[in-house]
Amino acid sequence: MRIALCGGTGDIGEGLALRFAYDTDHEVLIGSRDPEKARTKAEEYETDLDGRGTGTTIKGFENAMAADRADVVVLAVPPYHVRDTVGSIADRLDSETILVSPAVGMQRDESGLHYNRPSAGSVTEMVAETAPEDVPVVGAFHSLSAGKLANLDVELDEDTLLVGDDEDALDVVRPLADGIEGLRALSAGSLENAAEVESLTPLLINLAANNDLHDVGVRFE
Amino acid sequence: MRIALCGGTGDIGEGLALRFAYDTDHEVLIGSRDPEKARTKAEEYETDLDGRGTGTTIKGFENAMAADRADVVVLAVPPYHVRDTVGSIADRLDSETILVSPAVGMQRDESGLHYNRPSAGSVTEMVAETAPEDVPVVGAFHSLSAGKLANLDVELDEDTLLVGDDEDALDVVRPLADGIEGLRALSAGSLENAAEVESLTPLLINLAANNDLHDVGVRFE
Repeated sequence: MRIALCGGTGDIGEGLALRFAYDTDHEVLIGSRDPEKARTKAEEYETDLDGRGTGTTIKGFENAMAADRADVVVLAVPPYHVRDTVGSIADRLDSETILVSPAVGMQRDESGLHYNRPSAGSVTEMVAETAPEDVPVVGAFHSLSAGKLANLDVELDEDTLLVGDDEDALDVVRPLADGIEGLRALSAGSLENAAEVESLTPLLINLAANNDLHDVGVRFE
Repeated sequence: MRIALCGGTGDIGEGLALRFAYDTDHEVLIGSRDPEKARTKAEEYETDLDGRGTGTTIKGFENAMAADRADVVVLAVPPYHVRDTVGSIADRLDSETILVSPAVGMQRDESGLHYNRPSAGSVTEMVAETAPEDVPVVGAFHSLSAGKLANLDVELDEDTLLVGDDEDALDVVRPLADGIEGLRALSAGSLENAAEVESLTPLLINLAANNDLHDVGVRFE
């Protein structure tokens, strides 16, 4: 399968790119608004993986070109760029392309980070609102620490929560997430359940800060 | 220390009463609007503990009488009874009594349970708004499964998240929570962080339903 990481030059994009490339046989494409930056980063990731004896090819493209080639498009961009990014790739999407949303809106005050719920209900629902109607949207990977993902020396042992209304799309994304070693995908329900899933991210960051937990993840058991 | 469980005849009250009585040396008081019901339930809990060789005394009282005698008062009532319960015990509280709020407002639709955020921001903040100003309020025990707590044959291995603005009160509640075997208290910040903590509860219930996880708890690591 081909996975495009739009915003794949950012920190969560880097982490997912490296894990997918290292742990699975899927083809990873790096997308960026700036194709030159995408190519440079893709080469960096290849070099990192080469150093680990994994001769994987990772290619960089402008976001729409990456999305055009992909079966699954991960919107690894900050929440305030989600609408623009979906708009810029919309005509490359169709019912055969799954859009995956890992972004979370947060705001900081003196008590730490808070979930900043968008008017759509959640960032994942905002993606579904913005994307062409026939494009299936799945929320996933919200609670993963970018730093931990990007450091392949760190063994993961945590859950990621999936939300979506399209069962076929969920059946594609679930094994994709489970394919990352040490990651377990759990079903958190429909798109309407995305707010509670996204709310976990500021909670995790606050817990890490308040309890000296480094790169904290979550397990449900 | 004396712990009063207002609404201690309900399911989360029962679970906390049994765990505190079995795992710690604290004195447990059961509160209810109906003192007769409180006494009957307290006797039931005593019988359960006697059967396990723990000769603990648990007494039942009307809520205000239980609160009057306690160092820590847990509001183990449904969210829609929280204001009334705090009102009914308010004149028995002072700066030496810590109010603990485990309640979560939820509503169900076809996609499962959702967090129902009260206008105060969270149930924990609603308690702080309703209680006399000098009474310290701590949010805790939100994500614990009542059924698992009440079954002493089940070993716990999960976290509970504390929120509060009063450090002295947190320093009392933290060891209280840690005193329950298999439970680890983590600091989730101030009262303003309570919404993200309370949001975990509908998420846990949905995850249990969607993934065949029974009495699911959460670990952050």
